[in-house]
Amino acid sequence: MKKVAIVMGSDSDLPVLESAFDTLRQFGVPFQVRILSAHRTPNQAAEFASSARDKGFGVIIAAAGKAAHLAGSIAANTTLPVIGIPVKSSNLDGIDALLSTVQMPSGIPVATVAINGAANAALLSIQMLALSDETLAEKLAAFRKEAEEKVLAKDAAAGEKYNFC
Amino acid sequence: MKKVAIVMGSDSDLPVLESAFDTLRQFGVPFQVRILSAHRTPNQAAEFASSARDKGFGVIIAAAGKAAHLAGSIAANTTLPVIGIPVKSSNLDGIDALLSTVQMPSGIPVATVAINGAANAALLSIQMLALSDETLAEKLAAFRKEAEEKVLAKDAAAGEKYNFC
Amino acid sequence: MKKVAIVMGSDSDLPVLESAFDTLRQFGVPFQVRILSAHRTPNQAAEFASSARDKGFGVIIAAAGKAAHLAGSIAANTTLPVIGIPVKSSNLDGIDALLSTVQMPSGIPVATVAINGAANAALLSIQMLALSDETLAEKLAAFRKEAEEKVLAKDAAAGEKYNFC
Amino acid sequence: MKKVAIVMGSDSDLPVLESAFDTLRQFGVPFQVRILSAHRTPNQAAEFASSARDKGFGVIIAAAGKAAHLAGSIAANTTLPVIGIPVKSSNLDGIDALLSTVQMPSGIPVATVAINGAANAALLSIQMLALSDETLAEKLAAFRKEAEEKVLAKDAAAGEKYNFC
Amino acid sequence: MKKVAIVMGSDSDLPVLESAFDTLRQFGVPFQVRILSAHRTPNQAAEFASSARDKGFGVIIAAAGKAAHLAGSIAANTTLPVIGIPVKSSNLDGIDALLSTVQMPSGIPVATVAINGAANAALLSIQMLALSDETLAEKLAAFRKEAEEKVLAKDAAAGEKYNFC
Amino acid sequence: MKKVAIVMGSDSDLPVLESAFDTLRQFGVPFQVRILSAHRTPNQAAEFASSARDKGFGVIIAAAGKAAHLAGSIAANTTLPVIGIPVKSSNLDGIDALLSTVQMPSGIPVATVAINGAANAALLSIQMLALSDETLAEKLAAFRKEAEEKVLAKDAAAGEKYNFC
Amino acid sequence: MKKVAIVMGSDSDLPVLESAFDTLRQFGVPFQVRILSAHRTPNQAAEFASSARDKGFGVIIAAAGKAAHLAGSIAANTTLPVIGIPVKSSNLDGIDALLSTVQMPSGIPVATVAINGAANAALLSIQMLALSDETLAEKLAAFRKEAEEKVLAKDAAAGEKYNFC
Amino acid sequence: MKKVAIVMGSDSDLPVLESAFDTLRQFGVPFQVRILSAHRTPNQAAEFASSARDKGFGVIIAAAGKAAHLAGSIAANTTLPVIGIPVKSSNLDGIDALLSTVQMPSGIPVATVAINGAANAALLSIQMLALSDETLAEKLAAFRKEAEEKVLAKDAAAGEKYNFC
Repeated sequence: MKKVAIVMGSDSDLPVLESAFDTLRQFGVPFQVRILSAHRTPNQAAEFASSARDKGFGVIIAAAGKAAHLAGSIAANTTLPVIGIPVKSSNLDGIDALLSTVQMPSGIPVATVAINGAANAALLSIQMLALSDETLAEKLAAFRKEAEEKVLAKDAAAGEKYNFC
Repeated sequence: MKKVAIVMGSDSDLPVLESAFDTLRQFGVPFQVRILSAHRTPNQAAEFASSARDKGFGVIIAAAGKAAHLAGSIAANTTLPVIGIPVKSSNLDGIDALLSTVQMPSGIPVATVAINGAANAALLSIQMLALSDETLAEKLAAFRKEAEEKVLAKDAAAGEKYNFC
Repeated sequence: MKKVAIVMGSDSDLPVLESAFDTLRQFGVPFQVRILSAHRTPNQAAEFASSARDKGFGVIIAAAGKAAHLAGSIAANTTLPVIGIPVKSSNLDGIDALLSTVQMPSGIPVATVAINGAANAALLSIQMLALSDETLAEKLAAFRKEAEEKVLAKDAAAGEKYNFC
Repeated sequence: MKKVAIVMGSDSDLPVLESAFDTLRQFGVPFQVRILSAHRTPNQAAEFASSARDKGFGVIIAAAGKAAHLAGSIAANTTLPVIGIPVKSSNLDGIDALLSTVQMPSGIPVATVAINGAANAALLSIQMLALSDETLAEKLAAFRKEAEEKVLAKDAAAGEKYNFC
Repeated sequence: MKKVAIVMGSDSDLPVLESAFDTLRQFGVPFQVRILSAHRTPNQAAEFASSARDKGFGVIIAAAGKAAHLAGSIAANTTLPVIGIPVKSSNLDGIDALLSTVQMPSGIPVATVAINGAANAALLSIQMLALSDETLAEKLAAFRKEAEEKVLAKDAAAGEKYNFC
Repeated sequence: MKKVAIVMGSDSDLPVLESAFDTLRQFGVPFQVRILSAHRTPNQAAEFASSARDKGFGVIIAAAGKAAHLAGSIAANTTLPVIGIPVKSSNLDGIDALLSTVQMPSGIPVATVAINGAANAALLSIQMLALSDETLAEKLAAFRKEAEEKVLAKDAAAGEKYNFC
Repeated sequence: MKKVAIVMGSDSDLPVLESAFDTLRQFGVPFQVRILSAHRTPNQAAEFASSARDKGFGVIIAAAGKAAHLAGSIAANTTLPVIGIPVKSSNLDGIDALLSTVQMPSGIPVATVAINGAANAALLSIQMLALSDETLAEKLAAFRKEAEEKVLAKDAAAGEKYNFC
Repeated sequence: MKKVAIVMGSDSDLPVLESAFDTLRQFGVPFQVRILSAHRTPNQAAEFASSARDKGFGVIIAAAGKAAHLAGSIAANTTLPVIGIPVKSSNLDGIDALLSTVQMPSGIPVATVAINGAANAALLSIQMLALSDETLAEKLAAFRKEAEEKVLAKDAAAGEKYNFC
């Protein structure tokens, strides 16, 4: 199976990414974690992106905060799909990272998820890999079913507790 | 080859999507165009999304403006990757559509591109399909190369015209 | 009397909704509570909305955060008045939920109240039901009178404590 | 039948409100139009609101731009449901009017629709009146059906024109 | 001397206003404190504003949060200068109150100060009263001088502690 | 009578200020117009502000766009009341000028009006001068009455044209 | 004299940069113009930045719109001072470019000027070069003097035309 | 060597500036710290800026919050390069300070860094001084190298801990 790369600009982003690690492990999708900064290690980031396809990666997830260039600069150096996670930092509630990640110019897309949306980034990478992996597609359907059932259970409980007739 | 679906909430979004049509045609990727509203035709939108995988679609692109629920409601009914294009409408410069598209809750990702970023949505769908299609991957590399060369040509021309030494 | 439905996308929204429950109980208006997600349980949400009128509901209150599609997707499946409560989540201070709830396209209105404005959502539902229920209308007038008197009492106390002449 | 009042802060808002007039006429719902400013004619606005229930109004729609206090000040003087339309003026794209209309304090709700969302304000008022008027409820269902069919027709046409297989 | 009125929409705004009380006391300017809500006690607010000039008030300071209509509705009922303090509430960091206070339509000005800027509101009211009160004008000059000297003292201390030569 | 000064950062702001000139002329309030930039002529701006009280000015109106420091830097050099008009320039719709004008630190207030709110700035300056000028106060009351009557006339006309019963 | 480089992400940015060209020519500062995209020509952009110091450049000005990574990615590859110009594109009024340019992480500064602030970027580069070039410093002083005099001339003219005494 | 001045509007900004002090000390660049307010000590601020070049300063760093005029008013009184640090205060997350600092009018640039970006302000000042100081330039290169190595070490550690193959 193709691997997923999870790249982040700083190890301070690790807590945000835990839910991505969990999700990929749950689906049995192999992944590698890299700390590579678009600004502090631009050569290594570019080198990683350029060689990612050949090294067996299928999707790259990139997480960064503030003027979040990481996903864009990874995307500039590969034609693999790149998923961007805008990370909320101490100011501006993540809107700087969101706009820096999503507003890419024509020619170099970044598939952007919600601010701090690491679990969804992982799910999206699995959806992409599932395009040619029937087992993964089935796991996704089961996962979705399970999420639905959790909501339905809570729905029943809430009704019992709060209905007023 | 798996097909791409391009869904929009209103035919007034068609001009924004022309560049997506052009890009997919240029890569020879088959696509179908649907006008389906999350609000005016919710059943048809849900039905379309639920059956898309079985009908041979690989990726769904959804474009909508204002309280842009289309991509999210498509994503709620399929485990195919869904790409959202926030469309700028007459007010708020598209920020309403961007936030409505990208800020999805955990469990249901939407791969969001820039406001009115239809060409990038198409490219992203091709990158996904190229994960299991070597020919498409090569076309993507060639496309990228061509874009680079266009910039380099403009760079040379601008230098000649504007340098002041 | 017609019932009010209070629907929320996740049980994490329950604390925000307590003031709606309190208000409806205070007016003696029967209500049911549902946890239904536009994204995780789209079919159940649509089914609920489609049948709400026949089941004796008069108004539906829907609360959700982030890309808050719940109110809109309920409204897409009923012609009952739908009141949307944008819920503040951990990022962006609720502005994403506000825009996702209020900026509905022409044809499918959502009556939006303030971010986390659950008490007002309940009052608004009561105002709607009071259009054909004189007793409720009188209770609303009394409630308003009482609120006025509370302010006047505080006004008198503040004047005594702070006036400087 | 109870009447709808459409109040606006200035006659410069009339063009925005045309779609509300059209919608109410289409449903045969009687309405009166008032130009009343929360700031320039505060007494008349308060007097109008205070007596609206007794004069046979069921719902009040209030449209205003900038620091849009009209809907709120009407709501302060009646317990009828008040629908607020934030009007876009020359600056700030209507976000000032939206926040001034929707962020009402607890106790005095305003049912806010989208910026310049006059047609939806009218539909919402009809949905409220339809709570006790079966004929209106049926007209709403028919209206919804018609909107759906228009989208489906456009969907078929777009598919024919743009599909690429 | 003419009095200053300090009006607020809710007693929860009292802590924000303490610095206004302190400033007015320091200058010996008489003031009265009122809790009057544009929405919960609209008649009393209007009545207060209408009669304020005759009761010896020279300036009215009005503080409110969220859809902050208080200053505007006071201003609508008097031709005294009205100073608005946008109060930060639990959401949106006060930007809703700022826009609701400052974006007044032509004809009815509100002199708006910074979010939670109560001390400045008091100073501004004193500046207005000082237009016809030489003693107050001198106190303002002395107050300014004192503020300057505090900064200069801190400047000297910081230089000693931090300079690096 | 004390004079009003109208200061602007650039002669490109003149069109925005025409309504201030008109209003002051209409009330017979003498005024002087200065083009003084906080950034290009800081000394002249400071000198003007420092001597304004002695030269017979009662109020200073300052208009500027972008990083609008003019009102603040005038206020730093006088204890006269300073009214700030945030001017909309080609970007950001005036929000930069609004925040730069209104968010003044404690000790140095600027009485801020709406973006491009020049007529209101003039009215506010007249309200201040009217604190010690009974004739001006009467003119303000008459002006307000006239504005009210204009709205009432439009109200009557609109009702005749649009009511649908 | 050290040269200035003016780099932009696309030749569509050329009109915005004309005022930078004019300013540098006026001061006799040699400059070179490059079209280099952080996303479409990442290698050339990095190579240019890495070698800029050795090629005799003293300052690099980088202009880009949307998710404006150009200045940051240049700065990542040189220790020369880099000046960023956020360019307004068709959406969001340039706020995306501003945040993407200015919110750089610790370690890699970008000296950001106003949206579309090309003339100021040029002036800033000249101020930097003038640190070791007395002639340039004198030209800057003369330039500033001239700007001041232009304002003073306009000030005199406006006073004559508009004063009302 | 030319000195750096670090000016702030209030001693409450000192904690934000510690990282600037540390960085300059680490590079052995002499600096002086001033507390000077554009509003409370306008004369001293202007006097300082006007004489800074003659007193041996090469760069001025100015930090301020809210309506942050300090950097701009320093820049108005010198042709030395001025670096602005927008300081986050209790409201609006620093966006007011950012816009007040960066949106300078043509003719008077301020080199703006990120909100609270004091370390980068110091680095930028060093980059400017390094234009004519080879030793500083070498220190900058070494500093950059060190930052890169720290990231690479963290990268290796993260891979070991988190990779899942």
